[in-house]
Amino acid sequence: SSNYRIAVIPGDGIGVEVMPEGLRALDAACKRFGIGLEYEYIEWASCAYYARHGQMMPDDWKAQLERCDAILFGAVGWPATVPDHISLWGSLLKFRREFDQYVNLRPARLFDGVPSPLAGRRAGDIDFWIVRENTEGEYSSVGGVMFEGTEREFVVQESIFTRHGSERVLKFAFDLAQRRARKTLTVATKSNGIAISMPWWDNCATRIAAQYPDVAWDKQHIDILCARFVLSPDRFDVVVATNLFGDILSDLGPACTGTIGLAPSANLDPERRFPSLFEPVHGSAPDIAGKNVANPIAMIWSAAMMLDFLGHGAGAERAAHDAILAAIEATLKQGPHTADLGGKASTTEIGRAIAERI
Amino acid sequence: SSNYRIAVIPGDGIGVEVMPEGLRALDAACKRFGIGLEYEYIEWASCAYYARHGQMMPDDWKAQLERCDAILFGAVGWPATVPDHISLWGSLLKFRREFDQYVNLRPARLFDGVPSPLAGRRAGDIDFWIVRENTEGEYSSVGGVMFEGTEREFVVQESIFTRHGSERVLKFAFDLAQRRARKTLTVATKSNGIAISMPWWDNCATRIAAQYPDVAWDKQHIDILCARFVLSPDRFDVVVATNLFGDILSDLGPACTGTIGLAPSANLDPERRFPSLFEPVHGSAPDIAGKNVANPIAMIWSAAMMLDFLGHGAGAERAAHDAILAAIEATLKQGPHTADLGGKASTTEIGRAIAERI
Ligand SMILES: CC(C)[C@H](C(=O)O)[C@@H](O)C(=O)O
Ligand SMILES: CC(C)[C@H](C(=O)O)[C@@H](O)C(=O)O
Repeated sequence: SSNYRIAVIPGDGIGVEVMPEGLRALDAACKRFGIGLEYEYIEWASCAYYARHGQMMPDDWKAQLERCDAILFGAVGWPATVPDHISLWGSLLKFRREFDQYVNLRPARLFDGVPSPLAGRRAGDIDFWIVRENTEGEYSSVGGVMFEGTEREFVVQESIFTRHGSERVLKFAFDLAQRRARKTLTVATKSNGIAISMPWWDNCATRIAAQYPDVAWDKQHIDILCARFVLSPDRFDVVVATNLFGDILSDLGPACTGTIGLAPSANLDPERRFPSLFEPVHGSAPDIAGKNVANPIAMIWSAAMMLDFLGHGAGAERAAHDAILAAIEATLKQGPHTADLGGKASTTEIGRAIAERI
Repeated sequence: SSNYRIAVIPGDGIGVEVMPEGLRALDAACKRFGIGLEYEYIEWASCAYYARHGQMMPDDWKAQLERCDAILFGAVGWPATVPDHISLWGSLLKFRREFDQYVNLRPARLFDGVPSPLAGRRAGDIDFWIVRENTEGEYSSVGGVMFEGTEREFVVQESIFTRHGSERVLKFAFDLAQRRARKTLTVATKSNGIAISMPWWDNCATRIAAQYPDVAWDKQHIDILCARFVLSPDRFDVVVATNLFGDILSDLGPACTGTIGLAPSANLDPERRFPSLFEPVHGSAPDIAGKNVANPIAMIWSAAMMLDFLGHGAGAERAAHDAILAAIEATLKQGPHTADLGGKASTTEIGRAIAERI
């Protein structure tokens, strides 16, 4: 199998603590399946770096990362010293845009051993993917304030959706749905309230759907869709959404499966022109940082998704991915567990238990 | 007590079936507490009217409704014949805007006898209000498409938040929180992603909060806030949000309490320059329309909220509101139940049971 160069960015808070466990799992899996990884450790894209340099990243960040095949990312943000909009727009959101990682892929899955907040659901009942547009739409810094400081003050915020950007993420989602057993896609919308962009988005979906006659699809408004994540999460297979709606759904989905601390994410450039980025959904969690109690599973699962993407879903990389996932499942079922799952194990202990099982 | 003139608009689908039960409960409560109501029955603001007239409402709709003290509304929408954006923007959304009903108030409450999709929660555990801005923000028809039909096509959608519009709904929410036992307010935001309007909204909140030193408040990003509705709904007291976020939260909240079919809503002009509008959160539900199986409780509860608002939260109107609520609670606990709650009773039977208990 090939050799990959991985940029390793721990970032802030618990990012620093879970990253070593992600690497431990990677090392174990790559050793077993004969995959060569080379790590490039990066201390920037962190608030600690900002404190010393007044910016989140060095000027040549792009050149440095472009040399790598993928980016493994911990978490960024330390609001006590750097406002979120500076730390995020100065690192993570820049990566997503400038590396055109236009798909943010996140699973919602119910596991044995993980208490779900929903009543009466069992492992296997819930197993779907959220495909989020990751570069444009509602996340925009276009707009401004008028009549500032007066009674008449108002702010305009533009959401901007390109046909190119919308069609490609819809295609990715239809492709994914087509490869799955149920072949079912839900398109999140709000065309009954947001009068210009969302009917336009619905039209994009209808146009792309015509190319996938074997995929059963429908549109659901974001309000009732959120309700259905709680009421009938077993019905979903693949859900595709704009940037904001995808952000909401990909926190809500894992919350419904009790896995908000376990959920991984892949920020993908499916065309592989740029490195893709893999990160836990949980943030830097300042409240529990520095205590070695954070659950490293989201980080480890993200590392597994990275291998799978590097291997195009096949080969030794796929086998390594599956071995990591199996080790995660076994650990969730049999323990040890960190505090968030009612256990007493440390971050390191979970990382070791998973690596051993791999 | 005074006499009120009520515009009664059944609308479409199950709106037509639940409305008589709303009136039955009102009649019972008003008789008991000596309140005089006069109904003005209105057949427009329905897709049936649209089919005959090519518009949702007559030209003098505003004058007709302005003569009334409040509007009791069933549901609007029949997508098989009229697209949602026509039926909604041609009626309900017009009322909200042109009558400046800038607060949309919706409860999330757990009842005895209503199975919650959340595990281990009991009646009384969850009891909070969602205050939604109801006239501006993300629901806008400002924007447009450029380079249509080409590769470069994109759409711009503007969200527009006025200082006037934001401050007044925030004030309403702080006022409400101040009157409650826990005096706690959560402000929904997404200032880490939506870079212009949401930091501006946060500033509005901070400014208004300074006038309410006795209210404990914080900001929460909409993604994690949705997750917390599922994970720790007992923590919320009053939640305030922009139009879109409020729309999402006020479907999700009732979903978490198992009451999506029971939830009422009040579209309020708190300054009482225009009639306020009271409607169930559920829509016209074409799939179950015409079968006399819809649960009328959301309609009945909406009617109770109307009385309470007409009476400024006091007097005979308050007593009538409380009597209706008590009858709803007793019926939920002891039955009969409609199919959505696992029973066999018809819409009419539930309406009669509640009216008798009043
Ligand atoms: C029907 C739709 C336009 C409406 C809204 O989004 O406001 C509904 O979902 C509601 O919440 O009252
Ligand atoms: C931190 C924030 C900007 C980010 C987002 O909203 O995209 C996060 O919530 C996520 O989902 O990755």
